[in-house]
Amino acid sequence: MTFRERLRLACAARDSHLCVGLDPVREQLPTGFEPDPDDVLRFVTAIIEATAEFAAAYKPNSAFYEALGPAGMEVLQAAIAAVPGDTPVILDAKRGDIDHTAERYAHAAFDVLGAGAVTVNAYLGRDSLEPFIAYKDRGVLVVCRTSNPGAGDVQDLEINGEPLYLTLARDCREWDEHGNLGLVTGATYPGDIARIRVECPEMPLLVPGVGAQGGDAEAAAAAAAGEGGDGLFVVSSSRSVMGASPGADFQHAAADAARALRDRINQGLGQGHP
Amino acid sequence: MTFRERLRLACAARDSHLCVGLDPVREQLPTGFEPDPDDVLRFVTAIIEATAEFAAAYKPNSAFYEALGPAGMEVLQAAIAAVPGDTPVILDAKRGDIDHTAERYAHAAFDVLGAGAVTVNAYLGRDSLEPFIAYKDRGVLVVCRTSNPGAGDVQDLEINGEPLYLTLARDCREWDEHGNLGLVTGATYPGDIARIRVECPEMPLLVPGVGAQGGDAEAAAAAAAGEGGDGLFVVSSSRSVMGASPGADFQHAAADAARALRDRINQGLGQGHP
Repeated sequence: MTFRERLRLACAARDSHLCVGLDPVREQLPTGFEPDPDDVLRFVTAIIEATAEFAAAYKPNSAFYEALGPAGMEVLQAAIAAVPGDTPVILDAKRGDIDHTAERYAHAAFDVLGAGAVTVNAYLGRDSLEPFIAYKDRGVLVVCRTSNPGAGDVQDLEINGEPLYLTLARDCREWDEHGNLGLVTGATYPGDIARIRVECPEMPLLVPGVGAQGGDAEAAAAAAAGEGGDGLFVVSSSRSVMGASPGADFQHAAADAARALRDRINQGLGQGHP
Repeated sequence: MTFRERLRLACAARDSHLCVGLDPVREQLPTGFEPDPDDVLRFVTAIIEATAEFAAAYKPNSAFYEALGPAGMEVLQAAIAAVPGDTPVILDAKRGDIDHTAERYAHAAFDVLGAGAVTVNAYLGRDSLEPFIAYKDRGVLVVCRTSNPGAGDVQDLEINGEPLYLTLARDCREWDEHGNLGLVTGATYPGDIARIRVECPEMPLLVPGVGAQGGDAEAAAAAAAGEGGDGLFVVSSSRSVMGASPGADFQHAAADAARALRDRINQGLGQGHP
């Protein structure tokens, strides 16, 4: 099964377009958890367990595990393995390199860590993506339009009268020879998501930046679903779910936050989940 | 001491602009070495030992260590620690993310792994670089013009009549508030290196792509040194040094290859090392 098919099935099975980010932020560890690898894994696993019925995908962010040192990579591997088999895991790593190096990054993400998809950076050109898309059953999500305030410094540079991010989106559509490319499009710019969706109607969109970053989940979801309303996408949030409560009730709080966010996203699609 | 100062001193001390890439490619392990973490570390350490007198810097590439699994990160940490203290280590990781995530990548590179500099991708804009450049004693080398055949797909897109990579170089000069930014400029496009050098006379340039990738070391060095001849730069090669011999003489062969490449680079500067 392809990544697209798996993601579409997971969205349908959970009636959800929510992707739960698995970014163990030191300051958000609940009471009774220490910032050591064992406790971080225990925390991440508890979050997966608490949110599984609401999550169409999970997105561990490599940086938070790398920062724990070598043991952090074991935690990342174990966290990915703890996700239910029918729920795709998107490794947020934003890798981008050439040739043999790109091949090693793809091997690390897909074979060593077992991710179903990985985020990548396409600044190095089409050939830098090839070692990733060669894994035809995995997804490769190209960073296109990011959610940060400085996103436009490079992404809005004008190419033939249109912003770079839109040119890149169109290039990705052309480069997508195996049907496993997708795009990362920040929730803080819903108008840009809509423009990208028009150019790339078939591509899955990963939409980060709701919650702590201020993106409006409903507006982002409506834009990502597109005119026809059936565009494949997930909206991702990390801190608002993982940090929902610092107390012993953190699992309940995370589940409540995940349910509420799933419902807000669905409201953006006009499906109503009051 | 800043990264620039440390790099300039190392270049002067060795009379060298050679950066030895530490990319343990499975197929290049010499006889008697297995592709397991212990042997990879033994191999990388032997290469450092053999080439130390010719190397102004070392550049381990994160991908090759990540591909070894969690133990690979211990190998990377140990490899960095094995480099002589007066020789800067550039972690080639091409990281690029925002906010807390970028901060965690910077922590991983500088504090956990102990790198003196790291390569990054600036597609996400100036604010994505800030957590890296906040480490004022470390170097941050922005991928500007890469050495691969598809480099131009994105990097040559025209912005106001000039290629994107040149606009990015100029932006980096402006963003360099602490004097610790540098640029990655592939050896396979020496004319582009020259244009970048004109825009950024003070910045250290990391020039990969000689040897296996076909870049001409002399032409690249001349372009990176610039008109005045005193531009700060290192030319990097991995496979031609680490894979110089598959036999028991691999250390001698690596030393010979490093010496020869150092001399070719210096010839490009008109210093002659016949």
